[in-house]
Amino acid sequence: MIIDCHGHYTTAPKELQDFREQQIKGIDDPSLLASLARPNISDQQIRDSLEAAQLRLQRERGSDLTIFSPRASAMAHHIGDEKISLEWTRVCNDLIHRVVQLYPDNFVGVCQLPQSPGAPPAHSAAELERCVKELGFIGCNLNPDPSGGWWTSPPLTDRWWYPLYEKMVELDVPAMVHVSSSCNACFHATGAHYINADTTAFMQFIQGDLFRDFPTLKFIIPHGGGAVPYHWGRYRGLAQDMKRPPLEEHVMKNVFFDTCVYHQPGIDLLLKVIPTENILFGSEMVGAVRGIDPTTGHYYDDTKRYIDNSSLSAEQKHMIFEGNARRAYPRLGKILDARKSA
Amino acid sequence: MIIDCHGHYTTAPKELQDFREQQIKGIDDPSLLASLARPNISDQQIRDSLEAAQLRLQRERGSDLTIFSPRASAMAHHIGDEKISLEWTRVCNDLIHRVVQLYPDNFVGVCQLPQSPGAPPAHSAAELERCVKELGFIGCNLNPDPSGGWWTSPPLTDRWWYPLYEKMVELDVPAMVHVSSSCNACFHATGAHYINADTTAFMQFIQGDLFRDFPTLKFIIPHGGGAVPYHWGRYRGLAQDMKRPPLEEHVMKNVFFDTCVYHQPGIDLLLKVIPTENILFGSEMVGAVRGIDPTTGHYYDDTKRYIDNSSLSAEQKHMIFEGNARRAYPRLGKILDARKSA
Repeated sequence: MIIDCHGHYTTAPKELQDFREQQIKGIDDPSLLASLARPNISDQQIRDSLEAAQLRLQRERGSDLTIFSPRASAMAHHIGDEKISLEWTRVCNDLIHRVVQLYPDNFVGVCQLPQSPGAPPAHSAAELERCVKELGFIGCNLNPDPSGGWWTSPPLTDRWWYPLYEKMVELDVPAMVHVSSSCNACFHATGAHYINADTTAFMQFIQGDLFRDFPTLKFIIPHGGGAVPYHWGRYRGLAQDMKRPPLEEHVMKNVFFDTCVYHQPGIDLLLKVIPTENILFGSEMVGAVRGIDPTTGHYYDDTKRYIDNSSLSAEQKHMIFEGNARRAYPRLGKILDARKSA
Repeated sequence: MIIDCHGHYTTAPKELQDFREQQIKGIDDPSLLASLARPNISDQQIRDSLEAAQLRLQRERGSDLTIFSPRASAMAHHIGDEKISLEWTRVCNDLIHRVVQLYPDNFVGVCQLPQSPGAPPAHSAAELERCVKELGFIGCNLNPDPSGGWWTSPPLTDRWWYPLYEKMVELDVPAMVHVSSSCNACFHATGAHYINADTTAFMQFIQGDLFRDFPTLKFIIPHGGGAVPYHWGRYRGLAQDMKRPPLEEHVMKNVFFDTCVYHQPGIDLLLKVIPTENILFGSEMVGAVRGIDPTTGHYYDDTKRYIDNSSLSAEQKHMIFEGNARRAYPRLGKILDARKSA
């Protein structure tokens, strides 16, 4: 089985964006919010939005199941206040739930959280619980910078985040560390902010002792772990200079990197330096990069090809395509088994 | 000849730091500033600070010349105002000049700039000119984020920076894009802020049209280009999606990456995906990572070994060790030739 751990609903029907635009107008004119109805989207619209995109690409590229969450760049936790964020988050998560209900063999849900700049992460625990217990989701996307490029929250290792981590541990679900769009002109979203956030989170984990406090807490750092595998010597060396334990003990029991690295040499580096058990197959399709690489004739984000073409053994490939995902997302196995026997 | 493009004076005599501490106290108590004398450092102290560190490592590792600048993490442009930054900058640059005078065969100078949050980059032009014309320096370190981790300046492609670029072009000197310490708790300086800044700068260059306006302007992006080579497919794909010209034309005529990547697989990736003519040998010694890699028995930052061990041809290695540096720093050749004939 080929499990893609990183897919966002980037092709949602336009009614979703229409709702969001009305909601944003309502920030300045609250009277609009009172009458704002949730987007009216039919099952057929959902099918149409997926058939020609994610489902076609699953078939063409040969993946089976996508761990699917709302569009990351549209989370935009920096827009409006907590109440705005919560309503938008619920609308987005409920839409993912409908996708999963329509295509239970193709998708499993991961939720957006109702974060907001300055709002305690504890306030996101209820929506996480709703998504896991009521909607059957298996994880969440956690934004380390709800300010959208101003980095005003404490590091992920700060106790500020602990109440949310307690809920994650209780529910046995991981978080993908994933920022949203950037409202800081310095940072292009998918070209700088995303990658920087991945790198930043990993270094925070080195500095802190988070996994001493939460031995079963799990994070996925997407986009191949940001800059980390390329600078693996730097990170090992910094940890050593800082008298931290070796990374294998200190961080890598709890952290996974996905394979959203869009060329063969990058994937080869990832597979070479990062332990295989820490790597999850991911493509982020349909996502940040949509074109065809003229040097290969294939889509940049067809990351399965790079794994297939690597020198890993069949057993190692199986770990990356399926086995590791079952460990990273403990609820996934139960869901797959239940579906199989249904 | 082996030219290391990236060395900072991290081992300066403690009188320099004493001066800085007094200066920082003077921010709150300006009466202290009036009587603050420049640090009194003897030639012998300078020799002692280098003989057992940079000079010993040059000998041991087999490099000849280090392009040498003040300690990057100590630039701390976010401390105090423009006047504080200018005085500190001049003190640091003058000390580099003394190093170069004492060891003209081993070092050539690159200056810190008197940047300050919100201060127009134009205000840095005079100190750059002084360092180049009076002290014989061949480049500068340009901080894209003088706020120290809050990223409050416009992107490097913004016209805000143009007056400084005009001076760089006039003087024919490049800038290394180099942030300083971080006062944002999210960002570890050498483990996150440095690498993020490298990645961010490159993406800004993709988004903008800076090199159309300044065809001869040159930047060195240190630390192996941040995350860029690892995500080379992402950057090529983003440029393509954004209808930018191919990176070779759009950015790579003006941008160099150094080799401050502290393990063999990372260097191998860099050498594989980035055109050889865009790579400059650098080690950042004595710098961010000071330990010995237990997996190799060698210093992490002994980056010459990684180049030596690579599969590049002798001609390619010569480009990285010397030839490209002469192109990136047009004043370097004249200085070396003058020294030789002296």
